[in-house]
Amino acid sequence: MPFATLSEFEALLRAAPASDATASEAARARNLQLTKPPAALGRLEDLAIWYAGWRGAARPRLEKPQVIVFAGNHGITAQGVSAFPAEVTVQMVANFKAGGAAINQLAAAFGAQMSVVELDLERPTEDFTKGPAMSQADCVAALKAGWEAVDPQADLLVVGEMGIGNTTSAAAVACALFGGTAATWVGRGTGVDDAGLLIKERVVSEGAALHASRAPLEILAALGGRELAGMAGAIARARVARIPVILDGFICTAAAATLEKAVAGALDHAVAGHVSAEQAHVRVLEHLGKEPLLSLGMRLGEGSGAALAMGILKGAIACHSGMSTFAEAGVSEGA
Amino acid sequence: MPFATLSEFEALLRAAPASDATASEAARARNLQLTKPPAALGRLEDLAIWYAGWRGAARPRLEKPQVIVFAGNHGITAQGVSAFPAEVTVQMVANFKAGGAAINQLAAAFGAQMSVVELDLERPTEDFTKGPAMSQADCVAALKAGWEAVDPQADLLVVGEMGIGNTTSAAAVACALFGGTAATWVGRGTGVDDAGLLIKERVVSEGAALHASRAPLEILAALGGRELAGMAGAIARARVARIPVILDGFICTAAAATLEKAVAGALDHAVAGHVSAEQAHVRVLEHLGKEPLLSLGMRLGEGSGAALAMGILKGAIACHSGMSTFAEAGVSEGA
Repeated sequence: MPFATLSEFEALLRAAPASDATASEAARARNLQLTKPPAALGRLEDLAIWYAGWRGAARPRLEKPQVIVFAGNHGITAQGVSAFPAEVTVQMVANFKAGGAAINQLAAAFGAQMSVVELDLERPTEDFTKGPAMSQADCVAALKAGWEAVDPQADLLVVGEMGIGNTTSAAAVACALFGGTAATWVGRGTGVDDAGLLIKERVVSEGAALHASRAPLEILAALGGRELAGMAGAIARARVARIPVILDGFICTAAAATLEKAVAGALDHAVAGHVSAEQAHVRVLEHLGKEPLLSLGMRLGEGSGAALAMGILKGAIACHSGMSTFAEAGVSEGA
Repeated sequence: MPFATLSEFEALLRAAPASDATASEAARARNLQLTKPPAALGRLEDLAIWYAGWRGAARPRLEKPQVIVFAGNHGITAQGVSAFPAEVTVQMVANFKAGGAAINQLAAAFGAQMSVVELDLERPTEDFTKGPAMSQADCVAALKAGWEAVDPQADLLVVGEMGIGNTTSAAAVACALFGGTAATWVGRGTGVDDAGLLIKERVVSEGAALHASRAPLEILAALGGRELAGMAGAIARARVARIPVILDGFICTAAAATLEKAVAGALDHAVAGHVSAEQAHVRVLEHLGKEPLLSLGMRLGEGSGAALAMGILKGAIACHSGMSTFAEAGVSEGA
């Protein structure tokens, strides 16, 4: 058992190895020799060097990406925060298993293995305006489910989520972590109406007021959902195993933010795959200092934005590791 | 022989069929039934519907993308407009053929066939400050080379270029097409220094003054290069054959703009793959009303930004054509 308490989990994260500076320096040197004007591949060059450091190889390959979708249910839905009924969570899990959801298509398009982790769907979290959404033991169990779902042989990780009500949970987590009014953290999620949006704002305000004084991982337990904790556990495991991560949208990023707030540098192995149309996402990214790779107005979750960004990383690594150097190609360098 | 003059070429473009409205309507209807909240895939949904219309299928596949790189040399380089010597064009062609360039890696990463078309590399265009860069016959020959390089069975086309000096040529084309000062259309290209930048500005100003009164396709001949005409010919052929196109950076887009200025709607089958770090690119895109899919600070050319954007289109089509509907998956729809 890797950890039995939130403290033990945090200690593992704190002890995680850094990126391999030798490999990233070698990758940086290689990049300067490739047959292109300096910096002409823009962010692709930074991505490849970053990836090289985490994989410990100057000329890395990306061959075994993994996508994990975590599903959980939320007690807060009883207050009317979503446009969809709570039973859609379990229906969508069936859709994931049958291969019919967006994330299935995107994982397949970019050659990723995909798995779905259901987290006690029949046992929603508690209403966080009345007490903690999860006990610490429940949160640890979800973190462990995430931790154990990561394939240690994977060379890239995307985590996504499904859970009716979870933009409300993510907004409460973000509000408690970063402060500010509830209104700045809530959005329409899957498309809630004006009345629902007001309810979201109220419950986020109440939840954040009740739990914001807690430590970051306790905030994850008190305001998050099982699928948020599952994603956090998987991202932490990837950090320890030096598996690079592409973050998805608002919910994924809010869950990840609890790690960074608990242990500075916990997300150094992660890039932001995209910025969601859910308005609070860009604010979480700003707090984390992450610039998104894509901005395409997506707001689906499931890991879909991050999965799409796998194509960008795949392209970056293909160029870095596959291109010829000026010397190899007999091409004259610039003045 | 499809055309023998610029007028005949323009007539073919003018007679090109429109997108299939029945197919795009059917795709739009399908999109509303897919297992996701409405519009949750953002621009991916628009892309899939657009692609469906051009392919004439409500549930299209993307299976045979083609990348063509055109190479040409420019007489204007004698004035000192580039950081690289002109012989780099032929050296890079050898690199493309050997599989060592960025575009080779990106084409392979997204499963595209790739070819290279050398256009009279031993015969640079004329200095456009002294007269037309190409005769109309030379321009027609390059347009035809592009036209004929397109595989009629391709279901997506990316065109790219290699030609030392060609950001200067593209800037002159854009300046002549859209007006404004030369300074607003020139940039550092592959990395020219301040002195070179001033030369670029002067020659673009002189060239545009000399040739701006011409018709759009004559501007392509007078200020463009053979690789710009090659790209224009390929994009036109794709329009006639209803093969969707992803535009690359500044040079590709400037070449494409001559088509749109000649025949409104000539680029309806084209999306902007990315916005280049070459500062004038965004201005050409604004003139064309095209919003780029990616913004990653790239400025390499070769078709690299468009090739990377193939991943976005691939993901969009995979979702659209592969996802289950609410009815198929037994998922409840939103309120």
